[in-house]
Amino acid sequence: MDSEIIAVGSEMLTPERVDTNSLFLTAQLNDLGIEVTAKHVIGDDRERLATAVRRALANVRLIIISGGLGPTEDDVTRDAVAMAIDRRQNLHPEILSGIEQRFRAMNRVMPEINRRQAMVIEGAHVLANERGTAPGQWIEQDGRFIIILPGPPHELKHMFERQCMPRLSRIVPSLAIRTLILRISGMSESELDQTIAPIYKRYENPATTVLAHNGDMQVHLRARCPSAMEAEALLAEVGSQIDAALGDRIYSRNGDPLEVVIGHKLKQRHATLAVAESATGGGLADRISLVPGSSEYFLGGFVTYSRRLKTELLGVPEDLLREFGPVSRETAEAMAIGARRRAGATYSIAITGNAGPTTDGSESPAGAFYVAIASPRDTQVVHRVWPAPDRVRVRAFAAQMALDLLNRRLSQASF
Amino acid sequence: MDSEIIAVGSEMLTPERVDTNSLFLTAQLNDLGIEVTAKHVIGDDRERLATAVRRALANVRLIIISGGLGPTEDDVTRDAVAMAIDRRQNLHPEILSGIEQRFRAMNRVMPEINRRQAMVIEGAHVLANERGTAPGQWIEQDGRFIIILPGPPHELKHMFERQCMPRLSRIVPSLAIRTLILRISGMSESELDQTIAPIYKRYENPATTVLAHNGDMQVHLRARCPSAMEAEALLAEVGSQIDAALGDRIYSRNGDPLEVVIGHKLKQRHATLAVAESATGGGLADRISLVPGSSEYFLGGFVTYSRRLKTELLGVPEDLLREFGPVSRETAEAMAIGARRRAGATYSIAITGNAGPTTDGSESPAGAFYVAIASPRDTQVVHRVWPAPDRVRVRAFAAQMALDLLNRRLSQASF
Repeated sequence: MDSEIIAVGSEMLTPERVDTNSLFLTAQLNDLGIEVTAKHVIGDDRERLATAVRRALANVRLIIISGGLGPTEDDVTRDAVAMAIDRRQNLHPEILSGIEQRFRAMNRVMPEINRRQAMVIEGAHVLANERGTAPGQWIEQDGRFIIILPGPPHELKHMFERQCMPRLSRIVPSLAIRTLILRISGMSESELDQTIAPIYKRYENPATTVLAHNGDMQVHLRARCPSAMEAEALLAEVGSQIDAALGDRIYSRNGDPLEVVIGHKLKQRHATLAVAESATGGGLADRISLVPGSSEYFLGGFVTYSRRLKTELLGVPEDLLREFGPVSRETAEAMAIGARRRAGATYSIAITGNAGPTTDGSESPAGAFYVAIASPRDTQVVHRVWPAPDRVRVRAFAAQMALDLLNRRLSQASF
Repeated sequence: MDSEIIAVGSEMLTPERVDTNSLFLTAQLNDLGIEVTAKHVIGDDRERLATAVRRALANVRLIIISGGLGPTEDDVTRDAVAMAIDRRQNLHPEILSGIEQRFRAMNRVMPEINRRQAMVIEGAHVLANERGTAPGQWIEQDGRFIIILPGPPHELKHMFERQCMPRLSRIVPSLAIRTLILRISGMSESELDQTIAPIYKRYENPATTVLAHNGDMQVHLRARCPSAMEAEALLAEVGSQIDAALGDRIYSRNGDPLEVVIGHKLKQRHATLAVAESATGGGLADRISLVPGSSEYFLGGFVTYSRRLKTELLGVPEDLLREFGPVSRETAEAMAIGARRRAGATYSIAITGNAGPTTDGSESPAGAFYVAIASPRDTQVVHRVWPAPDRVRVRAFAAQMALDLLNRRLSQASF
């Protein structure tokens, strides 16, 4: 079954507010095997909302509307839905007395305008609101379903879980849903898609989503089957083909990010890590140390932004800096070796580069980076130039590449 | 003029992702006096998106569509819009060679599928993408406007500001909009609102928004008047009252973040800065060095995650660590003094603390932090405990407090 979600409220059409109820609703609906095919935000406008409801009814069997159930003139959801499906509304005496009671419990008299909240669309099933004044409504119309929910998240969640999920599960055939998350690094988004599209395109089920963020990629496979066993078998079937196509580009199969994967490997080896950063200015250390428990293997880092600190803290020879420049293979290598030795770490990562936006008087172009990994056995250096003149992104890409390199190094058998 | 925004992408119909581009677009549109009357999220489905575009065309004069311009089969925006308005698409040779060039610059060959990104709807004006491969398109249809933008926020923002805003401002009747952004630190969000609400509540124009993020707060005042002079006078009237109420809690009046304000002050004094971080793990150095040109005053940092590195790199005496513990006033002070001396900097900041989520076997509770500022004259230490057991947020709060302290120190007359 497909569904659409409509969030009602002009405040969600300002630059400061997004609708987040739909995230909760989507998770719940997906658990029943119901897909969300579109989401809408409509302002507090009776006609516009009625039109949106009519259009959604033409598309899908289930429409969930949140918000616009307050007592004021601005709260148009009841009227708009009644208009869209051409039904009357009636005052519901029990709801009215319930609202009056809530006010009495707060030692207040119900304002007259709150009577509006006791209006119910003809034929609707009332969804009691245990957390607030406005009840919800469950409406059936020609084999389709419209659910109206209050906007405040704690009211909406409680009502949906307790009263809507049980009803929906009786309507939709029960399905088992299983998800596989593969995380990938070391290739571009389009390379990734070219490699795996021939595989996942052959399947409608599992559904595949590819996400990319600053060089870090995720492939989500979501299988929906009558039984859990079938869903798992389907994921294994498609997952193993993607596995074979990507090989060691896949760094995690359980959703763990790269810095967590590296942490596990370091702990297994009883190894430690130190970093030396120039152009990423602490961003790599930040990412590594955000992992809870990272103090077990992460000793610390050197942010050697100035040339002098590269020499004093890391022992990069002045001659070498003069001859090759701070952004060079030689400097990256010397930084990594220096960081490893000075921190007394098993492994070290060094990053030097020019994050832009200008070349900053140095000989290296903006976007040029060198990453070095030093281990007990050897030191590897990789060079890369990113064209984007975006400082934040270039730094994030460089940190991602560095973690990816270390992870590959740690995947090798020996130290 | 009214507008609708359509965000395209199945990933925004999952429980994990919301569309945030529309927040930026709404702010920009509002500045021109254009209202957003509805927002939609549509999955990667050609037919559904074409229907959504047709419906939006029936409602409003301006439609902005973001996303779905990538090179893969899933990227349906170009096709869907062409379908909705019944126009053909043509391959644009210049765009194609631009994309090929981008790949060459990265030492790679353009994959064949990227040709799709060079397809342009007949009659469309091409919006060049200076930050990525997919160009945008500006289409006029029976006095209505359709703008197609790439999904990645940094590409979308740059393109919209540079190419769409100037074009839109020629279409809509001009209204002078002036904005005043005050940035505030060193107080809580509720203290801030309690202090200034009595002022801004008296005005509908300018519109006031209060934003808070990890201890950093902003007050946006937006005045819309027939003339620039009137708008500026209105901002001065309200702004001066808020100014008087907040005093030195306001650290910037031009939108500059704290790290930029500090950079200006350091440059004015020809002073330099070094940092020593334990619990923030590089996050403070990262934030300082993200400012373009920060290498003029930022020498670098020490991420002394392990106890031993505090001693070896910063010269914190082992006795002191044993006696007072790594999370203590004494250690913070010694770290700051050590960082300043070893880096040869005018000022230094040191942060030590426990970011949680557990107490990690140390004597200090999760959320406890010490921040020290060392200058040529003295060393100041401040202690703070944040109750939130959220590692990311606690670290961000600590970095914000450290920058706020340094800024106050730099506001004093002498070194």
